[in-house]
Amino acid sequence: MKIIVVGAGGAVGQAAVKALEARHEIISVGRNSGDLHADLDDVDSIRAMYRETGKVDAVVSAIGHGHFGALEQMTAEQFMLGIHHKLLPQVNLVLEGFDYVNDGGSFTLTSGVLNRDPIRGSAAAGAANGALDGFVCAAAVDMPRGLRINCVSPEVLEASRERYDGFFNGHYHVSDEAVGLAFSRAVEGCQTGQVLIVEFG
Amino acid sequence: MKIIVVGAGGAVGQAAVKALEARHEIISVGRNSGDLHADLDDVDSIRAMYRETGKVDAVVSAIGHGHFGALEQMTAEQFMLGIHHKLLPQVNLVLEGFDYVNDGGSFTLTSGVLNRDPIRGSAAAGAANGALDGFVCAAAVDMPRGLRINCVSPEVLEASRERYDGFFNGHYHVSDEAVGLAFSRAVEGCQTGQVLIVEFG
Repeated sequence: MKIIVVGAGGAVGQAAVKALEARHEIISVGRNSGDLHADLDDVDSIRAMYRETGKVDAVVSAIGHGHFGALEQMTAEQFMLGIHHKLLPQVNLVLEGFDYVNDGGSFTLTSGVLNRDPIRGSAAAGAANGALDGFVCAAAVDMPRGLRINCVSPEVLEASRERYDGFFNGHYHVSDEAVGLAFSRAVEGCQTGQVLIVEFG
Repeated sequence: MKIIVVGAGGAVGQAAVKALEARHEIISVGRNSGDLHADLDDVDSIRAMYRETGKVDAVVSAIGHGHFGALEQMTAEQFMLGIHHKLLPQVNLVLEGFDYVNDGGSFTLTSGVLNRDPIRGSAAAGAANGALDGFVCAAAVDMPRGLRINCVSPEVLEASRERYDGFFNGHYHVSDEAVGLAFSRAVEGCQTGQVLIVEFG
């Protein structure tokens, strides 16, 4: 398969690439790294990316960031950062991707643990993750031409332990291999509309 | 208790009011109906509403609308309608409400069935609902002064059968009483961070 992996340079993206690159042609995409550069916050940049890749069999997204901070001090603008920089770019990858994904292909998005096992200050992230999980569930029944759509929702990664030091105490830190299996299942498997939770391993 | 019910004129809001009005003082709020008028899409209108009500013990929200339509034809702007008119107004009710809800009080938001049992054309609604469910889960751990926050996620209401005729075939249509029990449990109960699903009854 020919597979676009957006956010391929991040911890989750690297886990996805490792799981798929031995068997497939990967086009890695990042803001400043990878085979192609794209700014997912800009829909024109998404369109340019697809024009560059041409037809593919799968699109994997492992991007997104947002605001962390106490809810009582949170502004609406801070709340919306996760919507604008994690939810909407991944939704736009789908909305703009229909003409570029071959029949029977798939979209795989990334949400995360914080809408089921939150940490302090994660209300905005929980909303963005929940939106992604809800989106793939409902989008799946609308997919044309046998296209599938799923979401990988990993626990915090072992690879991100230092970066998030202290924020995820008590959370199991999952391996690249465990996260990679979920992306493999999403891309190479048969399910659709699923939230593939990676809780252990 | 003194309870604000926003969207009190809608099907879900009416079910909430019916369940609570015998035991509590209800301040009903609607765009064009109710004890107070407010436009929840406008944060200044939310602030004016709270200044008018003064301190309360609970805030119940039963508002929201969005775009329904085939995903392949959906624009990003259409997708975002549910975010801007269902998710963000309810989040703003919380963000702006901290100074007005008494210690130990509660916020109760409304999501819906479409992020777990979608119908065709409901991808945007599924995202908005999932965001609300994820938000309350994560927001609950950030709540100060013993405040609680939950979300009622009802199946389609019997009261809305004619309005949505044909769209929810095969879905159980829940009664006002069943929906009202969930709001009662959210407001008068003790749980927090929960999605109170109303599937039958």
